[in-house]
Amino acid sequence: MLPPIFKRFVQLLDEFPEIGPRQAWRLFFWFLKSDKKFQNSFLDTLSTIKAQTSFCKSCFFPTTEGDFCDICDNSKRDKTTMCIVARETDFVTIEATKKYNGLYFVLGGLILPYEDKELIRDRIKNLENRIKQDKSLKNIILAMPFTREAEPTLKDIEKILKQFPEIKIIRPKRGIPLGGEIEFLDPETLTEALQL
Amino acid sequence: MLPPIFKRFVQLLDEFPEIGPRQAWRLFFWFLKSDKKFQNSFLDTLSTIKAQTSFCKSCFFPTTEGDFCDICDNSKRDKTTMCIVARETDFVTIEATKKYNGLYFVLGGLILPYEDKELIRDRIKNLENRIKQDKSLKNIILAMPFTREAEPTLKDIEKILKQFPEIKIIRPKRGIPLGGEIEFLDPETLTEALQL
Repeated sequence: MLPPIFKRFVQLLDEFPEIGPRQAWRLFFWFLKSDKKFQNSFLDTLSTIKAQTSFCKSCFFPTTEGDFCDICDNSKRDKTTMCIVARETDFVTIEATKKYNGLYFVLGGLILPYEDKELIRDRIKNLENRIKQDKSLKNIILAMPFTREAEPTLKDIEKILKQFPEIKIIRPKRGIPLGGEIEFLDPETLTEALQL
Repeated sequence: MLPPIFKRFVQLLDEFPEIGPRQAWRLFFWFLKSDKKFQNSFLDTLSTIKAQTSFCKSCFFPTTEGDFCDICDNSKRDKTTMCIVARETDFVTIEATKKYNGLYFVLGGLILPYEDKELIRDRIKNLENRIKQDKSLKNIILAMPFTREAEPTLKDIEKILKQFPEIKIIRPKRGIPLGGEIEFLDPETLTEALQL
């Protein structure tokens, strides 16, 4: 009895990660009750983004600027340093610090059963080519998550980096984050943080 | 350095209930990496829904069928019974049982600080008019949530229902749901369920 197009749309919403079928219905009905101005902005902005966005041919961050993103195209960025991140959101978070002036490389995720492994393997090949061709590159920051899940991806990248012994690899320091209570830290982090 | 249109869209996404700014970025990047076919279906389906959907003039469930929804328009539904629900998702859940053959009335939410109280108060006025005008109505099922949050809304509805002593009001039975462990039930439910 529900309009079939409602069900069709909720099924599409349900494909997003972290959105379950119940939440999909809730979000959908919220949208329907939101004002027309919001609905128009939502659809118009997303349509424009879909039409204008491609992935930077150098770092693979999405861009509306053509072949290369604003950062790769910016002559003021330090071309000797590249920061490898798993996700686009990591890129956004690092940029938000306003302390990093180098370039990026976005893997697009981690090699995990529920992720687009082909895309990530393809990006890793692209990473290898980029390092080969980019003669100005001197430092690579490996800004990968410190989790078991990230290990297979990290290993694949490290295999590639071994071919370039002239490049300095910078790994994130392990330690206590802001707000971190000693009581709740895992033994591995604590050992490193307290230099035991 | 991020394209301003990305930020604009993520701010719109962040307005949805239950979606925070970090999740909004994750959902956004997931969409950008999804295939073009998915992106097109998503946008086309939502545009069509926006263009075709209005709220049923009788029950206020969203409909693509013009003034009245499929259920209010269906001559086989029992016009003597109306089920009042807070949310559209409650309507969907009750329909999914396939055991209910009456009509509905959707409040659109609960009178709560973070909801669209004006919309709900307006719907309650509409409810009053509908009951006044609908001479075939004999039973009202009050399918409201059994929560403290729902109490103010329920009180407003009960005030209206008092004007119609000829209509039978059916309240949901309180008891142990499927899978309910005695150990975890609150005292109020347990008292009712065990008839203490």
